[in-house]
Amino acid sequence: MQITVSYSESFIKKEELEVYIDKVNHVHNQLHSKEHYDKMPLGWIDLPIKKNFEEIERIEKAADRLRDCSQAFISIGIGGSYLGSRAAIEMFPSDSPEIYFAGNNISGTYLKSIVDSIKDKDFSICVISKSGTTLETALAFRVFREILEKKYGKSEAKNRIIAVTDGRKGTLLEIAKKEGYEIFEIPMNIGGRYSVLTPAALVTMAVAGIDIKKVLKGAEEAYHAYNNPNIYQNDCYKYSVLRNILYKKGKIIETLVNYEPFMEYFGKWWQQLFGESEGKEGKGIFPAVLQFSTDLHSMGQYLQEGTKNVFETIIKINNPADDVTIPYIEDDSDGLNYLADKTFNHINKVAYEGAMKAHEEGGTPTISIEIPFIDEHSFGHLVYFMKKACAASGYLLGINPFDQPGVELYKKNIYRLLNR
Amino acid sequence: MQITVSYSESFIKKEELEVYIDKVNHVHNQLHSKEHYDKMPLGWIDLPIKKNFEEIERIEKAADRLRDCSQAFISIGIGGSYLGSRAAIEMFPSDSPEIYFAGNNISGTYLKSIVDSIKDKDFSICVISKSGTTLETALAFRVFREILEKKYGKSEAKNRIIAVTDGRKGTLLEIAKKEGYEIFEIPMNIGGRYSVLTPAALVTMAVAGIDIKKVLKGAEEAYHAYNNPNIYQNDCYKYSVLRNILYKKGKIIETLVNYEPFMEYFGKWWQQLFGESEGKEGKGIFPAVLQFSTDLHSMGQYLQEGTKNVFETIIKINNPADDVTIPYIEDDSDGLNYLADKTFNHINKVAYEGAMKAHEEGGTPTISIEIPFIDEHSFGHLVYFMKKACAASGYLLGINPFDQPGVELYKKNIYRLLNR
Repeated sequence: MQITVSYSESFIKKEELEVYIDKVNHVHNQLHSKEHYDKMPLGWIDLPIKKNFEEIERIEKAADRLRDCSQAFISIGIGGSYLGSRAAIEMFPSDSPEIYFAGNNISGTYLKSIVDSIKDKDFSICVISKSGTTLETALAFRVFREILEKKYGKSEAKNRIIAVTDGRKGTLLEIAKKEGYEIFEIPMNIGGRYSVLTPAALVTMAVAGIDIKKVLKGAEEAYHAYNNPNIYQNDCYKYSVLRNILYKKGKIIETLVNYEPFMEYFGKWWQQLFGESEGKEGKGIFPAVLQFSTDLHSMGQYLQEGTKNVFETIIKINNPADDVTIPYIEDDSDGLNYLADKTFNHINKVAYEGAMKAHEEGGTPTISIEIPFIDEHSFGHLVYFMKKACAASGYLLGINPFDQPGVELYKKNIYRLLNR
Repeated sequence: MQITVSYSESFIKKEELEVYIDKVNHVHNQLHSKEHYDKMPLGWIDLPIKKNFEEIERIEKAADRLRDCSQAFISIGIGGSYLGSRAAIEMFPSDSPEIYFAGNNISGTYLKSIVDSIKDKDFSICVISKSGTTLETALAFRVFREILEKKYGKSEAKNRIIAVTDGRKGTLLEIAKKEGYEIFEIPMNIGGRYSVLTPAALVTMAVAGIDIKKVLKGAEEAYHAYNNPNIYQNDCYKYSVLRNILYKKGKIIETLVNYEPFMEYFGKWWQQLFGESEGKEGKGIFPAVLQFSTDLHSMGQYLQEGTKNVFETIIKINNPADDVTIPYIEDDSDGLNYLADKTFNHINKVAYEGAMKAHEEGGTPTISIEIPFIDEHSFGHLVYFMKKACAASGYLLGINPFDQPGVELYKKNIYRLLNR
């Protein structure tokens, strides 16, 4: 599996990439240096080649156990403890068990609808939080833990709860130890938005029936594929460079465009990854997510003729898993028989070409990220690609892509207002 | 029901609003002038006080008929023929019949999943398209019409299809007449993105069990509430003015922030409304949609410390329909007993306060749109509010908020590539 990055050559000249050759070399050495690794939360970078096989087996075993006893499963987490697993499950949906996501907002209406849905079902939960004090997650966990304990009694309830948390300290770790929940660890040297290949997402994915070994295999392939500082041979760094070139040209909004609705949450995962990594020190590309062709009938006008500060990064999947053939109609009343026997995926690719050309003509540069197909393997490959591209982008922009100093203030405000 | 707009006074001085008093007066007179009405697609503006009671009855009757014979219902449309009804149905969900949305993209995988879901169910469809030639919609209609005719035979199938289309001409109108489908009309003087209170959305809403009379009543209330040119007495125009002031200060991205997940598609409807109305002649605020508190853990960092070109428009619902109370836990292991007996909606409001203050401190201005509650009536009120705010915003910006000249190019490209 290979990802290919291409771009509008009318907006970016080859010479403009050359300027980045040395810079990327430097960034690459930094990302892979022992010294840097020890200082920064870079654990995600070589995770795919340092697999913990024992842990993977244990995740699969725990997932099988919960699947066997559950009609519904509630994954409780927010941010990096939510978006990665949801992105995977939107691509590879599960009916058995039904998967619910809680603890990612504070809406009473939302929570009540999940409480009502699981009422008469056997269910189990996974709570994911490094500290255990994240408000949204802790509150939702409190609610579902109580329902579980009332329904099954404390001693069976504990077998239906998995905690994914810091391995050394924290409120959730303490609760889990005291209550006897099975515990999986989020490595301390991996930040939330980079944690999709850790138990933070893998446990939920495994319960949904996703083959996590294939996901990790795909990431391993990506580790090797993008371990080359040459931007002409490394499409991951190429993407980082192209974004930075466009940003410097005043293209300050990047829309990630999908042509497949099942990629919507992948888009949201990407939005957190890049937004939280780059949005600091008054800098950063604003990441937005669009679904085409849906949003051609919504944001298409803006992209064609609005303010010229946007570029599009388009995920193109060459061979989606499923398809429908356009039927032939005797009287051709809608005039579409010229498309009969063609497939929707074929037309979708034509839409990709047509929209890309139109938007380029209108002044919107595009970057295409081409993937041959979507399966568990390529999902693992793609998320690793994005994580490394994001880290390199951040360094090229001159910020630290691994911290998030700005998310503390609103939390402080909330706790103050709650009279803590 | 009343909508209240407030804003960060540290970013906008009262004097800045004053400049707009005359401008808004002019815009108001234009929007309500007979001369303008005859030239522009302004039919939506007085639609709430020109109700077609006979048509409303007919919609309800048709909806009842389809509900009685259907376990599933497929609404086929895109853009303005999709987002409005979906926004309503996400707020007021229906299990009976299950509602599917097709014809809003060209993904074979997406379509196949609907085809599989309805296979063993009794189903019916509504196809919504002014012309009948919009590719996404026409192709999906072709597929489901064939399935329906194979399943029930042509003569029963026609009773399970409703066409919502132009009343005078067009491919869909011709097909519907020939086949004998029940037809509802999209008024010719209302553009797609302004059509949510017409059959374009009402038929689907009625089939989902939504009380469309209440929706229209809410819009009627809004017609009167915002029929006043004084920006200090008209919160709808106030919102238009505030957006324009912020845009002129370099705030070129507007994020519509919801604190309720059931408002996500309302956000997407809003995004089309404003993006397609304003994004032209190299101008326009880029409309983005965020869900809080979810996205505080994703885009919160960017909003706090990223590029200072964003403002937030926050929809605050004071009394959401449902709620959950935080339980008390004996050992207080998570330290949250200080919140026991408080409700999620209470905490959600605190999060609204805390995040708003934090982002304002970080340099992001906010506009709050406060609604007392969400029901069918207030939905109708809110969509009318937004439509009128959008029209006025566009005129203040100096563009025509009712055309979309830029969406033709990609369509042309697609047809060319399909070798038509």
